[in-house]
Amino acid sequence: MNATAFAHPFLSGLFGDDEISEHLGAEADIRAMLTFEAALAHVQAEADMVPQTAAHSIVATCKNFWPDMGQLKAGVAADGVVVANLVKQLRAALPSEVAGHLHYGATSQDVIDTSLMLRLKSIFPILIRRLQSVIEHLAKLNEAHGSRSLMGYTRMQAAIPITVGDRVSAWQAPLERSLQRSIEMLKAGFPVQFGGAAGSLDKFGAQGQALRAALAAELGLVDWPQWQSQRDLIVDLSNLLSLITGSLGKFGQDIALMAEIGGEITMFGGGASSAMAHKQNPVTAEILVTLARFNAVQVSGMHHSLVHEQERSGAAWSLEWLILPQMLLATGASLLQANKLACSITSLGRD
Amino acid sequence: MNATAFAHPFLSGLFGDDEISEHLGAEADIRAMLTFEAALAHVQAEADMVPQTAAHSIVATCKNFWPDMGQLKAGVAADGVVVANLVKQLRAALPSEVAGHLHYGATSQDVIDTSLMLRLKSIFPILIRRLQSVIEHLAKLNEAHGSRSLMGYTRMQAAIPITVGDRVSAWQAPLERSLQRSIEMLKAGFPVQFGGAAGSLDKFGAQGQALRAALAAELGLVDWPQWQSQRDLIVDLSNLLSLITGSLGKFGQDIALMAEIGGEITMFGGGASSAMAHKQNPVTAEILVTLARFNAVQVSGMHHSLVHEQERSGAAWSLEWLILPQMLLATGASLLQANKLACSITSLGRD
Amino acid sequence: MNATAFAHPFLSGLFGDDEISEHLGAEADIRAMLTFEAALAHVQAEADMVPQTAAHSIVATCKNFWPDMGQLKAGVAADGVVVANLVKQLRAALPSEVAGHLHYGATSQDVIDTSLMLRLKSIFPILIRRLQSVIEHLAKLNEAHGSRSLMGYTRMQAAIPITVGDRVSAWQAPLERSLQRSIEMLKAGFPVQFGGAAGSLDKFGAQGQALRAALAAELGLVDWPQWQSQRDLIVDLSNLLSLITGSLGKFGQDIALMAEIGGEITMFGGGASSAMAHKQNPVTAEILVTLARFNAVQVSGMHHSLVHEQERSGAAWSLEWLILPQMLLATGASLLQANKLACSITSLGRD
Amino acid sequence: MNATAFAHPFLSGLFGDDEISEHLGAEADIRAMLTFEAALAHVQAEADMVPQTAAHSIVATCKNFWPDMGQLKAGVAADGVVVANLVKQLRAALPSEVAGHLHYGATSQDVIDTSLMLRLKSIFPILIRRLQSVIEHLAKLNEAHGSRSLMGYTRMQAAIPITVGDRVSAWQAPLERSLQRSIEMLKAGFPVQFGGAAGSLDKFGAQGQALRAALAAELGLVDWPQWQSQRDLIVDLSNLLSLITGSLGKFGQDIALMAEIGGEITMFGGGASSAMAHKQNPVTAEILVTLARFNAVQVSGMHHSLVHEQERSGAAWSLEWLILPQMLLATGASLLQANKLACSITSLGRD
Repeated sequence: MNATAFAHPFLSGLFGDDEISEHLGAEADIRAMLTFEAALAHVQAEADMVPQTAAHSIVATCKNFWPDMGQLKAGVAADGVVVANLVKQLRAALPSEVAGHLHYGATSQDVIDTSLMLRLKSIFPILIRRLQSVIEHLAKLNEAHGSRSLMGYTRMQAAIPITVGDRVSAWQAPLERSLQRSIEMLKAGFPVQFGGAAGSLDKFGAQGQALRAALAAELGLVDWPQWQSQRDLIVDLSNLLSLITGSLGKFGQDIALMAEIGGEITMFGGGASSAMAHKQNPVTAEILVTLARFNAVQVSGMHHSLVHEQERSGAAWSLEWLILPQMLLATGASLLQANKLACSITSLGRD
Repeated sequence: MNATAFAHPFLSGLFGDDEISEHLGAEADIRAMLTFEAALAHVQAEADMVPQTAAHSIVATCKNFWPDMGQLKAGVAADGVVVANLVKQLRAALPSEVAGHLHYGATSQDVIDTSLMLRLKSIFPILIRRLQSVIEHLAKLNEAHGSRSLMGYTRMQAAIPITVGDRVSAWQAPLERSLQRSIEMLKAGFPVQFGGAAGSLDKFGAQGQALRAALAAELGLVDWPQWQSQRDLIVDLSNLLSLITGSLGKFGQDIALMAEIGGEITMFGGGASSAMAHKQNPVTAEILVTLARFNAVQVSGMHHSLVHEQERSGAAWSLEWLILPQMLLATGASLLQANKLACSITSLGRD
Repeated sequence: MNATAFAHPFLSGLFGDDEISEHLGAEADIRAMLTFEAALAHVQAEADMVPQTAAHSIVATCKNFWPDMGQLKAGVAADGVVVANLVKQLRAALPSEVAGHLHYGATSQDVIDTSLMLRLKSIFPILIRRLQSVIEHLAKLNEAHGSRSLMGYTRMQAAIPITVGDRVSAWQAPLERSLQRSIEMLKAGFPVQFGGAAGSLDKFGAQGQALRAALAAELGLVDWPQWQSQRDLIVDLSNLLSLITGSLGKFGQDIALMAEIGGEITMFGGGASSAMAHKQNPVTAEILVTLARFNAVQVSGMHHSLVHEQERSGAAWSLEWLILPQMLLATGASLLQANKLACSITSLGRD
Repeated sequence: MNATAFAHPFLSGLFGDDEISEHLGAEADIRAMLTFEAALAHVQAEADMVPQTAAHSIVATCKNFWPDMGQLKAGVAADGVVVANLVKQLRAALPSEVAGHLHYGATSQDVIDTSLMLRLKSIFPILIRRLQSVIEHLAKLNEAHGSRSLMGYTRMQAAIPITVGDRVSAWQAPLERSLQRSIEMLKAGFPVQFGGAAGSLDKFGAQGQALRAALAAELGLVDWPQWQSQRDLIVDLSNLLSLITGSLGKFGQDIALMAEIGGEITMFGGGASSAMAHKQNPVTAEILVTLARFNAVQVSGMHHSLVHEQERSGAAWSLEWLILPQMLLATGASLLQANKLACSITSLGRD
């Protein structure tokens, strides 16, 4: 019973992205949150803040624990975040003398934002690989047909002949810049979030920063001062996603126009019509336009989430939860469809 | 594995709406599409366009048919719409001499848009009932506390005392206007979409309009000339949804501010913090703000879908599929949360 | 020195609308605000709240008064609204015994929102007249060419032949619905805003409502309870503006595509290219798409302004000031361009 | 008669930015376009494509030429771009044997986009300087009050005490990242646009790239292959603008909340109310929120402009003209107001 195209039983044929969905679903999120709690206990034990035996017990429990989802959902309904209930369930699964050492000095946002960062770290290589693939396909099209002639169109009017290469380059170049940016972002690393109740690591005094650095290292993340009310990193990332889908939307729009005007493109695999057997609809090309516009709409919501009041805003933060996963899925789907589209083109231009 | 908050295993605790989800999921959509095909065969039989026996067979089959979802998804991937494959599967389930009479003179958009209208017809009474309930709760608050004193705030500064009734009226009045509009929209009725391949009912000549009127009557919808490239009705409806969530967002924002400033509101059931046992977070109030901003973002996408090129745009139409169901779910969730919030208020104002 | 296309020395050739600009500029605003102050004094004198002689003096002064603009601008910089300084300047121009009777019991929002309503009342007839004109031009095109053949395109592919009338109707019908809505909105009337410091007409006790009704009547507006934090009327109006530009954007997009594909449209007056003498760019058609997308973006900002905190939000209210006038100008420009475009079409379709 | 707040006779008291406006107005644009034409003639003469005497004449004329604005506006109305008419007027001002050498091999987009780049190059240092100033003011606040106590608020509820420094850092850090990005963008340089009729430098054959490089050098811009249909650079820049205003919006929102709750902030210079003499409205703080939301809305429009069809889209390109200048002005105004706000704070926190 799913109303969202990205996870819809049949609309996912167009909009689905199994690989990226896996990192954005509840299971991966819970796994990553448990990884956070385990890592926290581990580094706190190393720093003699928590007994080693307690940390071992927490790490072992986190490895195999699976929460009751009904309780979790009820917890979110009551608390607005999942962590209070997850921690409660985890504590119930721990020996009583260990339970109090779990989640020590941490808060909901530490767990949730760090979980997001861990999963973005897994998602970015997928996006990068697909971007590279689209770029390669375009390069091959350029190699095969680049020197052929194509009518250049400006302002919806035939202008003068250009080459296929001229147009393919205009598709490829922005994707290369977005690829470069994606690689840089992955290389710079995703930051741990760790600030405690109000961001000041109040439980740890002078040891706070070293603890945070150890936690980051344990999780394979970058050490940053807490950023719980500073959402520019995430908003900037959403901008990159929409740059990708926007550039692919231009590719799709151009292909759809070429398919409509005719004479300069051949493709296989156009969509069937329920009413007209003769049609070959450029479905993939259209979907790239759809996804470009979708992300261009959503990116606005991410920018609104910058107005994140005080130490932590429930309202602004939750808005990200509604929007960012879908932008990632839309970007994933757009890259999948763009690869499919690029592969389906058998010729471009005229002799 | 669901990344969308509205259908998420635990985030749905805040954002979920089981009742409305049911009408927006794949099952209800398929049922409504089969209803369309059955009704079409029936009215075509009445008009002697299709043999009565064929129509009986189609109606009976549509009643119990359930498609193979894998094929349906593959069909969407290939064709960009579900109808071609659904019709193919249905035809395979019909006697061969009947199969050709199915979907006669219809096209994908007829089926999909009419299915949407049938489901909106079911959803609107739910929204209306919930709006009435929120309004009643506010009226009760007004009755109980309306004459008490409340500090009026303008531009984030204490201004002069007003009454609780002054502020509650400002929450209630826009909701009453939206309720009125919702009732009018439901009363005006949702239109059938029936136009055939390119909207001109080309298969039916002079009989087309009468057939469409009969189809509308059979489905309990309003008879309209085909509107497949005219999306103003749907966009206007999305505007109403965002007016509702926006007005509820103002209610939530005010409650959150009252909770923060303190002294003029008591509520039960605030959310727990994983780090601070003493806190009672106004979770429900914040979520109303989140959902208001969410719909305020999405409504832009709906307006973009007005630029629906030629007789049918795959790109603009698909954008609606990504956005409208979520706006309906966000509105449903907002009304649920607003009811919960209004019920949780035990006092407003000062003596 | 103007960076805004709507009032730009040369871009206004495309985007300008002198007639509507006049109602949205500072001069019309000041005139309307003075009209409010005069009317208020007048009805307060009728109700014996203000001496008749003071009211006469205020009415006479308001008729000819023109504020010092530098002071006004400095006042806005300091106060965030223009009214405090405007009232100060006006008081200085009045006899000292009269000055205290000016603006009695009113607040900034009363003056500014009522001024907006007075000007919307002037703007709507312009929009209605232009909508009627576009609809008439389309009707004439339908009359002249409606029965000719046109290739129907669905999903960016030639589908089956339709008639010119089929397509022109799809342009015309949504505009007729928007016209109907515009007429209803004008007929329902625009409401006075009058609430005083925090909306409760605190200065007037039991006489408040009668005074407001008299003020509305004096100004030719509708009497409404104060709505200073209820922005649904204005947001709904912005939705109507974007429905108009969106429907015209579809018209423009279709014309641009027809011009690109060729063979089924002739127009005069296409735009010249600085590089290619042979081109006739469908500039007007493109601009309709631009303005549709512009308003589809802006309408989102208007919906955000619904989250108008407490009795009056400086932040949410000011957002309207940045956006609504531009939406009105964009709608005006779109209607002007659409009329121009419709007139420039000399033939549609094929024999 | 100006309806736009950024250039409005009195609203510009809040939203105006004289310094940045100057670079975005028509005069600066025309000067930059003439600079382009002069530089083009100059480098074409160096490359023996144009006689040196003709180039001298063109350079001299461009220096002092001022077009007839009425003709320019009429040209834009007819052609959709200003360049055709500007070139026509310029040619009329040149000796007839020189006129044909003007604008040789260039097209409208070369002139207009390069003019934009020249002006962005002037605007960025202003933004950078102001960002530095805001950061310095925040650093001073931190120095003066950083160790004082402040109630931390999470989810609109008092949480635990933090330090003033904790909160000020959360304002400062994102601004420092945006400053860094702005400096990098300025350092990387803004690219020349030069592609001719359809982007392929068709008039210049093998000499095209060298000519473009020379033109870039002459103009102090970076040499890039033509990017007329690749708008990612400009969209990315708009993202940066909205990151800045969003971060300042968070600052403003926090100050407004502090002002409302009271007890932890003192400021001078709050705005006066026309109805209540006792109020000190945090006008500047609210305006930062307004401008954050404004840009968060507009950035969506910029992302839509990525779907820039074929070699040049009139529709998508014009959308940038409507939006980007306003985003720059909103960012400029936000920085001005943030500086004003930071300076007005006389104390933060509690002993």
